[in-house]
Amino acid sequence: MNAEIISIGTELLLGRIIDTDAPYLSRKLAEIGIDVYHRHTVGDNPERLTALIETALERSDIVITVGGLGPTVDDITIETIANLIDTRLVLNKTVLKDVREYFKIRRVKCPAGSKRQAYLPEGVKWIRNRVGTAPGLVAKYKGKLIVCLPGPPRELEPMFDLDVIPYLKRLHKIKWLLKSCTIKTTGLAEAQVNYMVKDLLKLNPPTTVGIYAKLREVDLVIMSKAKTHRQADRSIEKIKRTIQKRLGGHIFGYDDETLEEAVGKALIKKRKTLAVAESCTGGLVSHRITNVSGSSDYFLMGVVAYANAAKTAMLGVSPSLIEKYGAVSRQVALAMAEGVQGAACSDIGVGITGIAGPTGGTKAKPVGLVYMACVVGKKRIVRELRFKGSREDIKFQASQLALDVVRRSV
Amino acid sequence: MNAEIISIGTELLLGRIIDTDAPYLSRKLAEIGIDVYHRHTVGDNPERLTALIETALERSDIVITVGGLGPTVDDITIETIANLIDTRLVLNKTVLKDVREYFKIRRVKCPAGSKRQAYLPEGVKWIRNRVGTAPGLVAKYKGKLIVCLPGPPRELEPMFDLDVIPYLKRLHKIKWLLKSCTIKTTGLAEAQVNYMVKDLLKLNPPTTVGIYAKLREVDLVIMSKAKTHRQADRSIEKIKRTIQKRLGGHIFGYDDETLEEAVGKALIKKRKTLAVAESCTGGLVSHRITNVSGSSDYFLMGVVAYANAAKTAMLGVSPSLIEKYGAVSRQVALAMAEGVQGAACSDIGVGITGIAGPTGGTKAKPVGLVYMACVVGKKRIVRELRFKGSREDIKFQASQLALDVVRRSV
Repeated sequence: MNAEIISIGTELLLGRIIDTDAPYLSRKLAEIGIDVYHRHTVGDNPERLTALIETALERSDIVITVGGLGPTVDDITIETIANLIDTRLVLNKTVLKDVREYFKIRRVKCPAGSKRQAYLPEGVKWIRNRVGTAPGLVAKYKGKLIVCLPGPPRELEPMFDLDVIPYLKRLHKIKWLLKSCTIKTTGLAEAQVNYMVKDLLKLNPPTTVGIYAKLREVDLVIMSKAKTHRQADRSIEKIKRTIQKRLGGHIFGYDDETLEEAVGKALIKKRKTLAVAESCTGGLVSHRITNVSGSSDYFLMGVVAYANAAKTAMLGVSPSLIEKYGAVSRQVALAMAEGVQGAACSDIGVGITGIAGPTGGTKAKPVGLVYMACVVGKKRIVRELRFKGSREDIKFQASQLALDVVRRSV
Repeated sequence: MNAEIISIGTELLLGRIIDTDAPYLSRKLAEIGIDVYHRHTVGDNPERLTALIETALERSDIVITVGGLGPTVDDITIETIANLIDTRLVLNKTVLKDVREYFKIRRVKCPAGSKRQAYLPEGVKWIRNRVGTAPGLVAKYKGKLIVCLPGPPRELEPMFDLDVIPYLKRLHKIKWLLKSCTIKTTGLAEAQVNYMVKDLLKLNPPTTVGIYAKLREVDLVIMSKAKTHRQADRSIEKIKRTIQKRLGGHIFGYDDETLEEAVGKALIKKRKTLAVAESCTGGLVSHRITNVSGSSDYFLMGVVAYANAAKTAMLGVSPSLIEKYGAVSRQVALAMAEGVQGAACSDIGVGITGIAGPTGGTKAKPVGLVYMACVVGKKRIVRELRFKGSREDIKFQASQLALDVVRRSV
């Protein structure tokens, strides 16, 4: 069984938007053994869309369209599909109720145009949108399947995972499947990781290892194609153990696990609480920590002490210390960590100070210089690093460092 | 004149890589007046690639392939093109010298397979790769043009900008060019904006308006196709003024300007300082504000008061107030804003409290309920909103609300 994906939108063709939906669908389809040999992007043009769907239906069992389901005149998918399968659009009262409810909950007047979304091709299965207003469609046509999904990823992803995937699984017997495992590390450069697993990167299918470098993170991806889950799992598990032996504590998580989740897990396990004082990261560390559901159990407080007066007033950093060593120094990072630990009565205190740039650097203290301190009980860890990149890149790398030090020292 | 882009790579079809090359080429082609109506992604498969190029050549003047020029057996583009245009591959000594030089400079042994890259279709124009080893190709075929570019963006982008664009400009007289302006709004739903500019959305080329909904942000993009920059600018300016009249204060910026930058501008203009107390947004508001270079001039302090004890200790929110109204209430939001304003001695204080979810909601106070208070001198603004989506979506929408209220009330 194979599928073909058509992303719809003139804004895509103009390069104004990066398409992450098609890769998402591709990954999910591979996991359940459905091949994707073609993907397309086409504008908001009914003729070209119709022609493309017709061509796709000739060679593929499933055609998935993405986008063009909204309430505006640019949104042409529903009408195009209705014309293609030769059915009329009828008002769907459930969808209309949903749309009205959507605006009611938000206390916004239901706009006139939004009724358009409730007109669906007669007799075609539709899928409720859990997040937005535009429903999805599943149309059977000439023995093939046309699936229409909304464009926004936060609407498309749950709809595909919770409705379309189970439907496709019922429809076809899985002949092979593709499984993967992502091993995430931080603290090593790409070249270092590369050197440590050089032999594994040369493996040939059905099981392969790839290396992907991100900002202060290097991921290894093991992929295995097999007839059964068990077979794939066994191949992956073997290589995973080899990598674990070689990379040890540099590994912070697997697959979708984030560094902030790893920090949360470690804190919960050791029943420790955390407070963070940030200067150059400007709240990013607190933001990442609080992205984890349940973080209120261990995260007590964050202070973004941007002004020196705030470092003194909120964290008790003495003005003479700042004057003597500068706001960007080991001493101030440590005083911030101790200060926030004391103010929050937390087990662990973190202090970060640095120069995020692009201005404000000097020869002695260049842009990218970051001091990070972590106080755990009586233990004191202070790190000095120099990061490169944009302001946001430097903030992110500093947050990676801070989270990783906490993870390793809890 | 129009072009069609084909991205080649099984990795792309498996969804493991996000294609940013095709959007890049799309943008650059639009700027010089070349239309793109179709884009495709296909795997490392000669038959499917050949069929796709043939179809593309039927309807487009230029077919641009991306990727598959490397030294490995997966790289099939050169051979496929040679077969298609019926020419043989011959060793190009200049390219071979380049490849050897490349490895020599890097003090790496020239790998056996790399010689493969020096075999090019006989009589076809090739383009030197400034960054990597794989040359590009420009083949004339049946009155059409086939352009082959390497996949890595840092190789593709200079090759396209410095070689292909000038070539295409010489080849076809630029009859038109495309300019755009993005108008960014927040505070209105997509359907509301849609309703307010309904007539403009129906405009036909050469000047059009598109609507793009994001999380608590709706953008309008004016695009104008014209013979000269001046002509395009004039058409854009006219519609821009109409939109400004209708949307007024809902507009926070243009093109790449962010909401946090708009907040910064407003604060600098009025010489006001800001301090933020966050609960449910967990540091995101501070993070966004400090993403702006120079924010230390107006942003004094952020407090992420996650625990109730922190609300009391750092912001002076009385425990009895929390007990009476709950931590998620108008009263506590206001007390947080007043508390942080007092602690930081700032002109403006912001307080945000809510339920980011996915757990912790009740019937009276559901997930997504957010209270946001802004204290400006003696003025007090308190807003209650209900957001939907994931934990991160709710945090982001609440941060949009907070930043926008500050922007409007400075």
